[in-house]
Amino acid sequence: MSRMTWLLGAWVSTIASMSAFPVHAQTGEPAVIAAWTAAHQHSLLDEFEAFLGMPDVATDKAAIRRNAEVLVRMMDKRGLHPRLLENADRSAPPAVYGEWSVPGATRTLVIYAHYDGQAVDPAEWSSDPWKPVWRRGRLDVAPEIVERDASKPIDPDWRLYARSASDDKAGVFAILAATDALKANGLLPTANLRFFFDGEEEQGSPHIGELMRLNRASLRADAWLICDGPVHLSGRRQLVFGVRGDANVELTVYGPKRPLHSGHYGNFIVNPALKLARLLASMKTDEGRVAVAGWYDDVVPLGAAEKAAIAAAPEDDAGLLRDLGQVTAEMPGTSLAEAINQPSLNINGIRVADVGAQARNVIPTEARATLDLRLVKGNTVEGQFGHLRAHIEKQGYLVLDRAPTDGERTSHAKIATVTLESGGYPASRTPMDLPIARDVAAAMRTVAGDSLVLTPTMGGSLPLYLITEVTGAPTLVIPLANPDNNQHAENENLRVGHLWDGIATLAAVMRLPSAAAAGD
Amino acid sequence: MSRMTWLLGAWVSTIASMSAFPVHAQTGEPAVIAAWTAAHQHSLLDEFEAFLGMPDVATDKAAIRRNAEVLVRMMDKRGLHPRLLENADRSAPPAVYGEWSVPGATRTLVIYAHYDGQAVDPAEWSSDPWKPVWRRGRLDVAPEIVERDASKPIDPDWRLYARSASDDKAGVFAILAATDALKANGLLPTANLRFFFDGEEEQGSPHIGELMRLNRASLRADAWLICDGPVHLSGRRQLVFGVRGDANVELTVYGPKRPLHSGHYGNFIVNPALKLARLLASMKTDEGRVAVAGWYDDVVPLGAAEKAAIAAAPEDDAGLLRDLGQVTAEMPGTSLAEAINQPSLNINGIRVADVGAQARNVIPTEARATLDLRLVKGNTVEGQFGHLRAHIEKQGYLVLDRAPTDGERTSHAKIATVTLESGGYPASRTPMDLPIARDVAAAMRTVAGDSLVLTPTMGGSLPLYLITEVTGAPTLVIPLANPDNNQHAENENLRVGHLWDGIATLAAVMRLPSAAAAGD
Repeated sequence: MSRMTWLLGAWVSTIASMSAFPVHAQTGEPAVIAAWTAAHQHSLLDEFEAFLGMPDVATDKAAIRRNAEVLVRMMDKRGLHPRLLENADRSAPPAVYGEWSVPGATRTLVIYAHYDGQAVDPAEWSSDPWKPVWRRGRLDVAPEIVERDASKPIDPDWRLYARSASDDKAGVFAILAATDALKANGLLPTANLRFFFDGEEEQGSPHIGELMRLNRASLRADAWLICDGPVHLSGRRQLVFGVRGDANVELTVYGPKRPLHSGHYGNFIVNPALKLARLLASMKTDEGRVAVAGWYDDVVPLGAAEKAAIAAAPEDDAGLLRDLGQVTAEMPGTSLAEAINQPSLNINGIRVADVGAQARNVIPTEARATLDLRLVKGNTVEGQFGHLRAHIEKQGYLVLDRAPTDGERTSHAKIATVTLESGGYPASRTPMDLPIARDVAAAMRTVAGDSLVLTPTMGGSLPLYLITEVTGAPTLVIPLANPDNNQHAENENLRVGHLWDGIATLAAVMRLPSAAAAGD
Repeated sequence: MSRMTWLLGAWVSTIASMSAFPVHAQTGEPAVIAAWTAAHQHSLLDEFEAFLGMPDVATDKAAIRRNAEVLVRMMDKRGLHPRLLENADRSAPPAVYGEWSVPGATRTLVIYAHYDGQAVDPAEWSSDPWKPVWRRGRLDVAPEIVERDASKPIDPDWRLYARSASDDKAGVFAILAATDALKANGLLPTANLRFFFDGEEEQGSPHIGELMRLNRASLRADAWLICDGPVHLSGRRQLVFGVRGDANVELTVYGPKRPLHSGHYGNFIVNPALKLARLLASMKTDEGRVAVAGWYDDVVPLGAAEKAAIAAAPEDDAGLLRDLGQVTAEMPGTSLAEAINQPSLNINGIRVADVGAQARNVIPTEARATLDLRLVKGNTVEGQFGHLRAHIEKQGYLVLDRAPTDGERTSHAKIATVTLESGGYPASRTPMDLPIARDVAAAMRTVAGDSLVLTPTMGGSLPLYLITEVTGAPTLVIPLANPDNNQHAENENLRVGHLWDGIATLAAVMRLPSAAAAGD
């Protein structure tokens, strides 16, 4: 089975004209880097697997600090002058910072990745999230766990299963390995490099602003390059100019003050699960648009360059839907690329009492949901949250930011506690015609050729707005992972071929052409 | 604070004319029984607490068998000739059977209770569910744990907190204690007594039919008396002629085949939580009626005697709603007594991914709910389940009894797995003018006086239809527990005064007047 079919699932095999990387002939430096990486693949994977073996949920402060200390050692070994960036009272996970300065360089790049991972529910995993294992491909087609044979090259379709394998220790490690490849081949970066490895990205990076302000001089740059997220769904490399913002909202609606026997009270006391179902159902139209008034009002429309980039990007929504077992898109007639340029409202989870074997015949006291709001250019966190609150009020709810009092319960038929979690942030979008952006694209094309996709906004979120706000530098995202990596869910994985390509891409970007030599 | 206020919560204090038991002057035998019970209260409670200290979830077969063995010893000590009733292959929890035959008795009563308990989530409990503790009242007003002083009478308002404290080891123990009280005072029952203690009632008693058929001769009777459930909400004793039937349905709707990052796919792939919310919201009208076509079609209307009994029963729906923190009943204008004479559709629980600190920004692969269907006279399990299935199909769903195939996923936008759990059963209703029913009511009035409430149907469920079907005997329910006992939920409790009254009531019923002497 071809690499491409494995990579994207069966659906992509129907699009014969769509090319996965690297169809571009590797010559010159990219060929040198690829050869070095191939020759050192097993020692690189030994180090990467050990790094993945460390629990890294950002809420576990001791675990995250152990990761930071190991990362410092990994960087020190490479001569990258690492140090921890701590917030004022050292209460937060530290960022890990490093430098590689070169004589005569006129530009500076900060290269960003994050070393913390999403929370896990081990019961949902097919293997221990922090004991990396290999499979020959995606879990649904290759469930067997296999061993890596250090005497042979590894098949690029093999995948490594572990929390953070793709999101985002792959980014951290590809950056370090790219420096190895340059140094081993006597190549210097063409710009001064600064490394910034975030330790609380999955928590919304609540302290990154403080860390940047405390280290403003070290972090001044011509651009920040963000190594996170998956490559384009077509399997082609992409350079991303923007990200959506993100905010989480906790929602609780209330039933009887005590849990009640559903036999003795069923039909008489309204079940909070039914209230929550009605409320959530009110939030979207049957056509999949968010039915919250004002939701789309502040959106800054896409410009001509952005529309052209979207039109030029490879797209196979029909194949993607088929691969995911779907008949239609949520908003029929709206493409994925268009959909992620609009603000979203997602239900992350619902919890009311229990189901299945643990269920009991009760009318529960409350029903909870966690919502995820994605923001695009123009939206503010407070604005979208305000629209949502107003919508809930319009459904007849008394909206509180705390549990109701007895007096409120007996004077309001519908009460909701609605709270905005801290750590939300707006979207970011870098202009596509900025010189540094054109140079980064040119560097990527030395590896990817004309297959490089330019993406005005990707669907995921990073606090990039803050980087521009504090340091003044524009941001560009260079994603590395396979699109079907189960990021944020159980059985997260990295296709190893994507790690090799990530190293090649980052080495090329570190060898950025000068502004004069670059073209687009 | 008066016993009555404690008993029912603050709301009942507004209904000064409503009398809690026992306003009826205790003379004759009831006074003798009450005096004996008071004198022996601490030794009775020692035995009861030890019984409650045994985990008793029916799915834990080893635990439930230990309960059965202890119960055999408790009955043997009392000379009640206990033995285990096993199903054919001994795979089920046994029932515990016993006898007290009397010379010259012309009638036989089977007295039923169950010794198994509902499942628990210990995290939700304020104390260990199987380490009984005392409080001075209901948890919300008397959170402090207190010790019983064996040198003094216990306040009847004190409550014992443990799983099965009310549902239904209170029933089992009150029956045994009533035989103690009779024997200690040289009194014999006026009918032959048979005891039947069920070990899997909370699982829907799937083997009770088999046990009754295997032991038909021992279980033939003029009536089965069911000691389970709470007394009337007014706090008055009640005799119940019917129960609702019950069935559980598991419902799963499907999202993408893989969990997806809500940023990269939000707005493009429909979230199964939203599908489930829409589907559940479609099941009831805004006025609280079940919107499933045919739901009410088979209901046998109440007769004149039943309507009169409902009209005569004390009712304080407004106070009850206030106590539960509710503004209105689910069907405004429909009383609780009317509501429980209609079939219901309750959401026991919903589970979609996670909420709160465990939530992740994902579009999950499925959304699950457990539904509870209560049936009234005329409904069948298969009929109501069929109506529900048809309703889900009418919402555009392909309804399956298994997970969908890939082919089904890509050809149907909406797919639901809908399964009827085993163990469901129909309702039961005994005619109110049956002679044995009039005699039981008369016996109860020797303790309760005119405060006795006659209830055509209670909201809870028991497999009483099957007793009548297999043994031919009518069933009558004599509930004992306080209405706010948190039955089926966390912090289940028994107000100890209700235990004393239960013992008095059962002793009176064992001394049933002859048919000739009884009046109504």
